Amino acid sequence: MASEKPLVAVTCTAPVNIAVIKYWGKRDEELILPINSSLSVTLHQDQLKTTTTVAISKDFAEDRIWVNGREENVGQPRLQACLREIRRLARKRRNTQDGDSLPFSLSHKVHVASVNNFPTAAGLASSAAGYACLAYTLAQVYGVESDLSEVARRGSGSACRSLYGGFVEWQMGEQADGKDSVARQVAHELHWPELRVLILVVSAEKKLTSSTVGMQTSVETSPLLRFRATSVVPARMAEMMRCIEERDFQGFAQLTMKDSNQFHATCLDTFPPISYLNDTSRRIIQLVHCFNTHHGRTKGDCCGDRCGFQVAYTFDAGPNAVIFTLDDTVAEFVAAVRHSFPPEANGDKFLKGLQVRPAPLSDELKAVLAVEPTPGSVRYIIATQVGPGPQILDDPNVHLLGPDGLPKPDA
Amino acid sequence: MASEKPLVAVTCTAPVNIAVIKYWGKRDEELILPINSSLSVTLHQDQLKTTTTVAISKDFAEDRIWVNGREENVGQPRLQACLREIRRLARKRRNTQDGDSLPFSLSHKVHVASVNNFPTAAGLASSAAGYACLAYTLAQVYGVESDLSEVARRGSGSACRSLYGGFVEWQMGEQADGKDSVARQVAHELHWPELRVLILVVSAEKKLTSSTVGMQTSVETSPLLRFRATSVVPARMAEMMRCIEERDFQGFAQLTMKDSNQFHATCLDTFPPISYLNDTSRRIIQLVHCFNTHHGRTKGDCCGDRCGFQVAYTFDAGPNAVIFTLDDTVAEFVAAVRHSFPPEANGDKFLKGLQVRPAPLSDELKAVLAVEPTPGSVRYIIATQVGPGPQILDDPNVHLLGPDGLPKPDA
Repeated sequence: MASEKPLVAVTCTAPVNIAVIKYWGKRDEELILPINSSLSVTLHQDQLKTTTTVAISKDFAEDRIWVNGREENVGQPRLQACLREIRRLARKRRNTQDGDSLPFSLSHKVHVASVNNFPTAAGLASSAAGYACLAYTLAQVYGVESDLSEVARRGSGSACRSLYGGFVEWQMGEQADGKDSVARQVAHELHWPELRVLILVVSAEKKLTSSTVGMQTSVETSPLLRFRATSVVPARMAEMMRCIEERDFQGFAQLTMKDSNQFHATCLDTFPPISYLNDTSRRIIQLVHCFNTHHGRTKGDCCGDRCGFQVAYTFDAGPNAVIFTLDDTVAEFVAAVRHSFPPEANGDKFLKGLQVRPAPLSDELKAVLAVEPTPGSVRYIIATQVGPGPQILDDPNVHLLGPDGLPKPDA
Repeated sequence: MASEKPLVAVTCTAPVNIAVIKYWGKRDEELILPINSSLSVTLHQDQLKTTTTVAISKDFAEDRIWVNGREENVGQPRLQACLREIRRLARKRRNTQDGDSLPFSLSHKVHVASVNNFPTAAGLASSAAGYACLAYTLAQVYGVESDLSEVARRGSGSACRSLYGGFVEWQMGEQADGKDSVARQVAHELHWPELRVLILVVSAEKKLTSSTVGMQTSVETSPLLRFRATSVVPARMAEMMRCIEERDFQGFAQLTMKDSNQFHATCLDTFPPISYLNDTSRRIIQLVHCFNTHHGRTKGDCCGDRCGFQVAYTFDAGPNAVIFTLDDTVAEFVAAVRHSFPPEANGDKFLKGLQVRPAPLSDELKAVLAVEPTPGSVRYIIATQVGPGPQILDDPNVHLLGPDGLPKPDA
């Protein structure tokens, strides 16, 4: 064993990802193996990220974890599964390498601190970024260099997709032990530089069914979900990969919208039914289709059923919309959102993230939108883009845990 | 030819029906042949009906039609298809019988007047009752005694189900000419006397996609709809018929809700997606599941996944809910609706139709409902029950057309 340091700490960041081919339903609840493959876009960490510090020390009496400054129960099964899995990989590595290069024993306890740079209240799925960051940071600490899909996946299925930047596929795999249920990058974050992402944070009134409970009920009760998984998704995965490879925004936009709609359709086919979309979500859907129809007409470049898709929406297990568009359309679409969902004058910034220049809205477009404006129903917009995977932060000042292994006061 | 009378007039009424196994999608747009069988409950005409007078005279220059007092274009293709079809049946009957018993020529023109006893603004599907009434009344005039499914169906698919009382199946049929796509009664209107129906008329803001356009788009774009039609509905039809035959409310309620949800799921899977349910609809769905869960628990008669269904919802192509329950539950459920959706104090009657005694709501149930009350979002309730099929009105005073063949001033 190498010489022991009193405390080893590593801090990393990991991104949020948004699926364009949706994951909904497990074939194995324990191993978190999905009933279909899925594909996501990694969002840029300048706007949305989780930061995690893992510290390890012989002086720690037990594993502990703090999330957004509050200590949480380290005994929760998914967290335990991640810790068990990374220690298994570390042990495997130690046993297959010459000697042991780790400056600590694998039996030492860890402290984990994790924070998001976006409000939890926004209802943005933070568990994917959170577990990806945990897996990645633990891997740095333990010197694990193998694929981390399983470590992240055991925390939250979609977390494995946040292990890479750009465009990421989670292959469902076929093996019962899940060894082939892994994430891989299908295109680099710089592959499609014009792509932009807008998150429309929607006011919601009530508690939603958690994804875990929701997808379990769907698998048990929705006849349409099984059909989707076996007979619809495989072809859609192939088509989506082609669209990304060719930077075919028309195809990408259409398939993204269709797959979001089909996911929510299977939620509605669940018994009791699950509704993540609310009236504001549906107004946004209508706005996007009106915007697209308008541009399909005015640009005169009608190409059948793919006519004029300038903008696409996708919704996860909540009412927030994630919008994909290209850089030359962002300003006009933001103006359209502002027109249909005027910000309430509460002083908060309506547009966060990337700069978007103000753009005028033509009278023709205003007339086409034809949605009764509903002030305040979109709380704010986060403008972002495709981004890289997890990052290691070298500066020890950024650690969320102090030399005593406890959260720093300001973390 | 028998001696000609100056004017022959017949007046009939026909009921509204509400499907519990839904019809959505045609395999033949012209003949209106469905992609799956469906099953409906005929509602009582004391609360909801269409009344139609058909008059025929050699003095009429052309076919004409008035709906709710306003003359409409008689040339619309569906109306023409009904008229053509009934005249074909009348001709067939004349040619196969001894002589001709009709007191007029088949070449004479008809005048039609039709009114509903419920406001069109309520958004209740009136076309089924309307075309059933037209087909039935025309058949009386022309002495046609054969099956009228095709005549009604050519006007509006689901109209063929309004030709019978009680519980009615529309068999999809297999023939290309649609001759075996017919409605038939599966149980008489007095078969299940405890069954009650509540229509919750919901405030809606915007124009909806018409059923005709909607189902056509669904057939063209929804992968889930085809699967539903071929692989889900056949077993559901058999199960629903068993539930009705055995008066199994638990099974009836569960399947009714599941099939409504699946229909709306296929609408959402359509591209662009169709949303007929709004936030109020979804609050009603939640209310029903809370109400059922509460009763499943308190009555202690839990029976697996069919536990305690006291109330079921179904929604057609709009946000209004149709509730099925049994007579001993009506009063408490109405109280629950009144609690969650307090009537706005506008002087209108909140509860129409059958008398419902006021009932107290237990504090336990109030606590369970847990829906933020939203005043005015349910405009009113119509309480009704299962009812008979079309009726002939013998009293000539009820004719909507006067001796001159024009609408009476008060009709």
